[in-house]
This record gives sequence, structure tokens and C-alpha cells, in this order.
Amino acid sequence: MIPVCDVQNSKGDSGFMLSKVGVTGVRKPVCIKRAIDGNDLNGMLFCSIDVFVDLPAVQKGSHLSRNLEAIREVVDDSIATPVTGIENLAVDICKKLLVKHEYASEANVKIEAEYFKDTSTPNGRKTMESYKLIGKAKGIRDCKIRKTLGVEVIGMTACPCAQQTVTEILEYPAGWPVMSHNQRNVCTVIMDMDENYDVEANGLIELIESGFSSPTFELLKRDDEGAVVINAHRNPKFVEDVVRGVLIKLVDAYKDLPDDVGIIVRSESEESIHKHNAFAERSCTLGALRNE
Amino acid sequence: MIPVCDVQNSKGDSGFMLSKVGVTGVRKPVCIKRAIDGNDLNGMLFCSIDVFVDLPAVQKGSHLSRNLEAIREVVDDSIATPVTGIENLAVDICKKLLVKHEYASEANVKIEAEYFKDTSTPNGRKTMESYKLIGKAKGIRDCKIRKTLGVEVIGMTACPCAQQTVTEILEYPAGWPVMSHNQRNVCTVIMDMDENYDVEANGLIELIESGFSSPTFELLKRDDEGAVVINAHRNPKFVEDVVRGVLIKLVDAYKDLPDDVGIIVRSESEESIHKHNAFAERSCTLGALRNE
Amino acid sequence: MIPVCDVQNSKGDSGFMLSKVGVTGVRKPVCIKRAIDGNDLNGMLFCSIDVFVDLPAVQKGSHLSRNLEAIREVVDDSIATPVTGIENLAVDICKKLLVKHEYASEANVKIEAEYFKDTSTPNGRKTMESYKLIGKAKGIRDCKIRKTLGVEVIGMTACPCAQQTVTEILEYPAGWPVMSHNQRNVCTVIMDMDENYDVEANGLIELIESGFSSPTFELLKRDDEGAVVINAHRNPKFVEDVVRGVLIKLVDAYKDLPDDVGIIVRSESEESIHKHNAFAERSCTLGALRNE
Amino acid sequence: MIPVCDVQNSKGDSGFMLSKVGVTGVRKPVCIKRAIDGNDLNGMLFCSIDVFVDLPAVQKGSHLSRNLEAIREVVDDSIATPVTGIENLAVDICKKLLVKHEYASEANVKIEAEYFKDTSTPNGRKTMESYKLIGKAKGIRDCKIRKTLGVEVIGMTACPCAQQTVTEILEYPAGWPVMSHNQRNVCTVIMDMDENYDVEANGLIELIESGFSSPTFELLKRDDEGAVVINAHRNPKFVEDVVRGVLIKLVDAYKDLPDDVGIIVRSESEESIHKHNAFAERSCTLGALRNE
Repeated sequence: MIPVCDVQNSKGDSGFMLSKVGVTGVRKPVCIKRAIDGNDLNGMLFCSIDVFVDLPAVQKGSHLSRNLEAIREVVDDSIATPVTGIENLAVDICKKLLVKHEYASEANVKIEAEYFKDTSTPNGRKTMESYKLIGKAKGIRDCKIRKTLGVEVIGMTACPCAQQTVTEILEYPAGWPVMSHNQRNVCTVIMDMDENYDVEANGLIELIESGFSSPTFELLKRDDEGAVVINAHRNPKFVEDVVRGVLIKLVDAYKDLPDDVGIIVRSESEESIHKHNAFAERSCTLGALRNE
Repeated sequence: MIPVCDVQNSKGDSGFMLSKVGVTGVRKPVCIKRAIDGNDLNGMLFCSIDVFVDLPAVQKGSHLSRNLEAIREVVDDSIATPVTGIENLAVDICKKLLVKHEYASEANVKIEAEYFKDTSTPNGRKTMESYKLIGKAKGIRDCKIRKTLGVEVIGMTACPCAQQTVTEILEYPAGWPVMSHNQRNVCTVIMDMDENYDVEANGLIELIESGFSSPTFELLKRDDEGAVVINAHRNPKFVEDVVRGVLIKLVDAYKDLPDDVGIIVRSESEESIHKHNAFAERSCTLGALRNE
Repeated sequence: MIPVCDVQNSKGDSGFMLSKVGVTGVRKPVCIKRAIDGNDLNGMLFCSIDVFVDLPAVQKGSHLSRNLEAIREVVDDSIATPVTGIENLAVDICKKLLVKHEYASEANVKIEAEYFKDTSTPNGRKTMESYKLIGKAKGIRDCKIRKTLGVEVIGMTACPCAQQTVTEILEYPAGWPVMSHNQRNVCTVIMDMDENYDVEANGLIELIESGFSSPTFELLKRDDEGAVVINAHRNPKFVEDVVRGVLIKLVDAYKDLPDDVGIIVRSESEESIHKHNAFAERSCTLGALRNE
Repeated sequence: MIPVCDVQNSKGDSGFMLSKVGVTGVRKPVCIKRAIDGNDLNGMLFCSIDVFVDLPAVQKGSHLSRNLEAIREVVDDSIATPVTGIENLAVDICKKLLVKHEYASEANVKIEAEYFKDTSTPNGRKTMESYKLIGKAKGIRDCKIRKTLGVEVIGMTACPCAQQTVTEILEYPAGWPVMSHNQRNVCTVIMDMDENYDVEANGLIELIESGFSSPTFELLKRDDEGAVVINAHRNPKFVEDVVRGVLIKLVDAYKDLPDDVGIIVRSESEESIHKHNAFAERSCTLGALRNE
């Protein structure tokens, strides 16, 4: 006989509602299927999942085990009907949370996972690179769900300012691509939209990679290594340039998305000449960008 | 002859302003002096500092080295006139940023540092515990600066639900404090206010520590260890209870602060019975709490 | 035409050999197939891979891109002939490194990956838990390869000392299981052996889980939560007890392994009553354990 | 009346001794005084401390609270008689552990702390940079204590191979310093010696900084930024070169240290053209280096 423990359902004595109650850091393997260029792509994502609902003032505790049930049911369903993206996985869990927590008016889900994608080097050799995906969903009862797709991409930036300084100090002949400091840069794009719109993660990753001084690669033989270095120095970029370049491409690539899509573009360079990082960010709506 | 490199001042071709441009992860030792109960308390903080200003659409780059100059000047000044708190250090840097970046309309500063404070065990032995301080400042040109003090405190929670379940399963005699699962809990309070108000970090830490099932201590001899365990089980708390308890105490302790003070209270339990964490948060204004 | 760059092959002027030269943090998805109880189990591991070879004094640089080629070839081969364990993946890469770096006399490989395994709660409900696997291989040219399997498991410990102290302070009736502090414990077992021996990761994980005060679970309904708490308190363990309990089980379970198998057993408790951790470790050979 | 709880002293039933039992992650502020060039230098270190003793087979548990007492007493003593270095702090704690744990035959201490040091840029501007110090001590009862000083320094490396490749691809005129990829490099030196020898941390840090393609700095105005970039490219280094360069300097700088001093030199480059790192290490004795 299972003891009936309902401490959670007892009336809270504090009088305060809570914005977010839930669990963080739940680890789950999930099968994802995306249709890309007419081809089905199956992939495994090892997800770290946070889920929350709000809690009315009159209720002492949230039923935390229901969060795990919600996650598990959605992941189990995905075996028969694969999820089409990390942000849609978040939406499915979000809907389930609002059903299971009948006292909640709002649910929030955040999922992070590593992602591998095939790409090719400047001289056309195949390679597979690692990225981070972020999926979120925020649901208010009886309203449309708002979902978020984020991708975090590592690339390379070469500094335009040091390049000009060196040119002047060394009096380089005109036209020679000149040395500068260069380093790892992490560029993150986060797009927030109604659940019925869709942004393809692979396309977003490629868009970002084209915004660095150069993308980076796991395996580079000599000629490819040379090409990456030369390309980066012919294409020097501040963190500001990376963000602005990505913003232009976003406006161009996502003409079908509505004005109210939220956009965050962030670029952080792990400066080779400093122990600290350089950082730039723009946070706005797609509509604001279109009118700037 | 220093080459005049002004790539940053050249007109940007993107047409987009940027919300935040700056540096992250700058490490600095700073001397802090607080007056507590009429006594001056000197302390060293090893700070991790992030600073940002916005960047108009017409300008290609932000002058990142000015950020380091601003930080250094404020830290150097602090030798003659010690800073009175991590959040006031943030305010001073914020003001300096707006002077140095004449093109910026907004500046943001975030500082984090470890902090040590004397306290005593249940049976009165002296001990020194470690905490995290967070200071922020946000300045809009020609407006008052908004500052933030945050403290992160580690304590202990014992679960009220498992305690009741165990009581029922084992049919404990009434009145006995009963076993439960218990674990490390991290409780964070973040208070956002006009620069002319002040909240004392030490008081805020003590307020939070009284909100756990029990505070935790570096050195516990047997009798103190027993007292901590018994206290925690006589005072079982969900993460929800920790947050609500702290909210009540905040309303009570800061009667002099205005309604527009922003409040975030967050409690995260590193559950001993799960591999994931339990989490609760309230985010609102002090005014909203007063009226609930 | 690929430029012939052979800076690496030029003679070093330092006169010093180097113990380990290579790459760290290479991310790779790998397909693993283990035969367990007669059933094939396929699984995906997202690996973080470090590889090194030594470098003779006469050679300026190691050919780092060959490391990536070695990793890639082994991973590609695994599609046709699945690897049977993370430590065997390390062995395969290790052998390939010695072929590709003809100047090296030694190769070292370390691989870490998250791993999910089905298990069940005290009351028999199915659950899936997350673990960490560690695979290593060390190869000296013309000798047998030595390989290492490590598993890191999260469980729960309840303190026997606090339990006795509380019993005495509260004068509990004899026979009642009494409260104590309890917390997350991370137990790691690392076994080092000749490449022709095999230890099954799943079996090792189960052995470790039986060494905690209780294993921990993702989803616990009330009765299971009560059972976990009661079991843990009926089975209180210091970190020392966890290590010694696992050592006894290892001696018992791996009778077929030779005396020269290296063993490290480590238990770290994230103490609920302190901000620091408690730690115990034994490092020795299986032979030493058998004779103690 | 304090309850007499001596669960730890009861006889263990496992028959196994344990190599290391103790606590990890104890946070402590410590005042350090070093005499450098005839001047006393006072500094605060915020230490993370791990301490361990072995445990005989016949004893159930180690007295963990004695570890905290040992740490506290040494730190308290340091107010009257300042400690002269992080490795000597480790020695003092190590000795105290052997007194307090009368059953132990061996004690181990590890301390890590951030450290700030004044330095100057290529063009002579003053700056303060951040480093990591590591102190260790290992004491076997009735023997001399062995202590370890480690320093971790961040600098910059520019790749010699990519530089040659680019020179060939672009057919640069002879004598021009040519672009390459460059990045943050973390170089660590760990020196292990009898307790009566001494190595000055500041000198070791400067030795390491001279081994990079260039040191890195918090604040660089244009001319200094140009100088750092040009210096780095005139001084390109593989991770192998960094390690070998430091080895040569160590042999030269520490002629007074005995042959049995243990040396680890490690260099890890956070490659700008890859998402993974390049790594080199030499581990040996000073005597071995002298004879190579």
C-alpha cells in the first residue's frame, strides 16, 4: 500500500506565488529526425533538460516527479514519432507540463545538447564538427507556445585593428595580407518565435560559420591549414563585425519569419593577446532589424 | 612614434547598432571597506569583471582598451578611498565607462567575487564560511544608475515530503523527528535598486542562512554535527519553502527600500536521491511582494 | 600544388625528448556494440578524446594532424565493425598512432563519454540513469597494450557517525532507523589490465551501485522515494565504507583477472552539512587486495 | 554533555587499508609573505585546499574534522608568522596532519590559488596579470617532507608550420615576418623537491613567460598591441618548442637544486584553427635533463 503523501498539496502559509518551480540538469538521450533537402536525417542528442512551472500562492509545493514523467513520456513517444528538432522537443514537453500541473498557468523548458554536422574544409576535404544546440519553450495556459532555437558555433577571428597597426609599424607593401592576432570565437544565435514557425538548425549553423574570419576544422592537412590562415587574415573581424555580419545574413535568410521574432546574436573572442575575452551582442526583434 | 590606428572609429557599413560591446573575465584584486555596526571592515575581493557599452550604428568598433583603463582607474582610486561594496565598485566603473566611451548611451558592469565571513556553529564555535558576491550596475546617460547586489549562499535542505512518507511507512511514534533525504542547497538573492540606496551584504547573507533547513559549516565537532542534523530535520524545507521564507524576511527586513526594488530569490537543491537538481525562483518587485 | 611544409621534421635544437605530444578535447560520436548476456547492445557514445605520442630529442615537432587521422580512421572502421567498448576503442586508436608516428616509442589515449543504462527503482519501476565511462590505452612499441576501463557513478551516502550522535542526543528507542545527513556521492572505479582481458562496464556499474547507502534514480514516486531514504539510513556509509565495500566486491567478482590488474577505487561525498567534500581512495593491484 | 561518538575508531571489517582519506575543496583566505630582492611582499591567497591521510585496515573511519582543525591552526598561526609560499603552507599543514592523525603513516596536501603579479608591456607600461599557483606536500612519518611548487601561466603561441606554409603559398619576400595562426597557450611548470629547498614563484613565472611566442597583457594600447603581435610572429612556437624552451631555462636557472628534483613542464594551445587543443609535456627529474 503506497502511503498517501500530499505535503505538496497542502496550503502554503507564505502567501507568495513562485515564478518557476521544477528540476534542472535532467540527462536524457533523444532521437531526432529532421527532413533536410528532402532527406531524413536521424540523430541522437544527449540532452540536459530543465523544466519549470509556476506555483500559486495557495499551494505549498509543486509535484516535481510529474516533471520527470512529462519528460519521459515525450521521449518515449519520440521512438514511434521522432521529434523534428530540439526546440520542438521543448514544445512537446512544455505542453505536457501544462496538462500534468493543472494548477500552473505557465511552463518553461530549456534543453541543451551537443550536435555533430558534416562539413568540408577550404580544399574540399570532408570533416565532422561539433556544435551546441539550445531549445526552449515557454507556454502560457490557453495561449500559443513560444519556442526558441539557439545554436552555438566555434570559429576564428583575426583582428582588423592589430593588422592595420602592424602594417604601419612594419611599413608593409600595399596589398599584402598582414599578420594579426587571431583566436577562437564563440558565436551564438538565439531565435525566439511562435511554435508554428520553423528554423532549420543546419542552415543557421552554416549562416554563422560564414560570419567568422574563418570557420575552424578538426583535421587540416598543410594546404588546408594555410588556406584557413590566409582566408582569416583576408577577412579580419572584430567581435562587432561578426555580430553585424550575422545580423545582415539573418535579415536576408529569414524573410518569411514575422517581425516579432526575437533575435540575440552574440560573439565572444578568447583573445590571444589578453587573458580576458572580447564580447559583442545585439538583442532585438527581427522587425527592429528590418527597419534599421 | 605610435601609429594612429583608428579602425574602430571608421564608419560601420552594417547599419546596425549593437546592444553590448566590451570585455569579459577581467581578473582584478580590489580592496573593499564596509562600515558595519560602527566598525570598519577591510577585505580583499578577487573580482571577475565584465563591462559593456552600446555601440551606435555609425561606428565600426568600440574602444576595448578604454574598458580596461576604466577598471584600472577605479581600482587604483580605491587604494586612497576604499570602495564600500562590490555593487558600488560596479557603479564607479559604470560612470567611468560613460565618460570614456563618449559615443555610448548605456553602460553595463557585472562583477563576481568570493567572500569570506565569520559566523558561529549551533554550539557557538567560531568558523569562517565562503560565499559568492555579485555586483552589477546599469547606467543610461544622464539618468540615475541602477545597481544590483547579489549573494549566493550554500546551506542544507531536508525534504518534508520524504519525511512524511517515511513516518507513514515506518509508523513512527508521534513527535519524533524523522529521517529524510537532505542535501546541499544554493540560495541566491539578487536585489536591484537606485544607486543611492544601500543593502549590507553581511545582513543579506545572514537573512538567507536563516532560510535553510540549516546553515552549513566548515568545522563541526560531534555535538555540532548532531545539532545541525537535528535542526535540519526539525525544519524540513522544499526549495519552494526556502524561497518563500526568504521572501517574507526580505519584506520584513527592508522596509525602508522603495517599491521599485527588483527582487530575485532562487533556491537549488543538489538532490541526494536524484542525479538532477530541484529548483524554485521568484522574480518580482518589492512592491509586488508587499501587496501579495 | 600542396606546399611541402616540414617544419616538424626538422631537427630540434633543444636536445630534449618529450614525454607526450598530441591533441586534447577532440569530440567524436562513436557507435559501440557490446554483447551482454547473449544480446547485442548498440549504443552511441559522444566521446572526448585525448591522444599523445612521445617525441625523440632529434625531431622538432610531432605531426599533430596524424592524430586526427588515426581517430577518424578508427571511428570510420567502427561503422562496419562496431567497437566493443570505450577501452577497446582506445586500444585501436593507440595501435594506429604507433603506425602513423613511426618515430614514437609510446602512445597514450584517453576517452571520456556519457553513458545511459536501464535500471529499476526499489519498487521495480523502470528508469534510465546517466554514468560516465573512461577508456584509456597505453602502448609501448613492440609490447602488449595496457588498457583501462573506468566508470563514474553517482549514488547516495548517509553518515553513520551523525546517525549514532543523533541516537544518543535524542535517546531514540533501540531498533529505529535514525536520521543522519546524507548527500550525493560520486564513486569511481578504474581498472587497468592487458588488452586481452575484458571487464563489462554494465557489470562494473551495478557492482558500484550496490556499494552506496543507496543508488539514486531519475523518477521516484512517493513509495520509491520512501524506500530509497529508508534503505540509505539502514545502510549508512562513510566514504571509507563505500571504497572498502567496492574493493571486497571487486575481489569477489573478478576472480579470473590476473594479480597485476591495477585498481583505483574512489568515493567523494558532496557533504550536505559542509561546503567541502569528503574523500576516500585506494590505489593498488588486484594481487595486493587478494593478499590483504 | 557532548555525546561520545566513536564510530570512526571502531575496527573496520573490510581488512583493507585506504591510500587517501580526507576532505577536498576547503576554501580559506591565507596571508603570504615572501622576501623578494630584499623586500617583503605581502599577499592574500584565496586557497582551495585538499588534505588526505592514509587509513590502516584495522580502523573504520578517519577523523575528518581533524583535517579542518589542522588547516585552521596553520592558517591562524600565519597571522603572527606569515607563511612564505603556498608550497610551505602545504608543508605546515602536512606536518600538522601527521600529528593529529596518530594512526596515519602518510599525509598529502594540495592547495591551489589565484595569484596577481605586476609586470610591464613591451613598451614599458605597468600592468598586473593573473596566474595560478599550486602547492603540494607529501609527508611519510619520520621522513623528510617532499614539497611541490606549480605555476600555471597564460601566454600566446604563433604556429611556425602555418607560417612557413603561408610564406610558400603567398611567395612572401624573404625577411618579412609572416602571418600565422596564434592563440592562448597555458604553460604549467611543476617542481617537486625536499622541503629544505626553495623556488621563488615570481622567478618561475617570469621564466615561463619568456618561453611563449609572447606573454599576454591586460591592457594594451595600439603600439603595445602591435609589438605583441610582431614579437609573437618573430618568435613562432609549437607547444613542443614552449616545453623545450622552458626545460632549457630551468636547467640553467636552478643549478643549485639537486638532481632528484622532479619536473613537469606542460604546454596546451587553445588552437584558433581547431576546436580542440594542442598539447606537449615532459615529465622527468632535473638530473635526467642535465644528462640529456
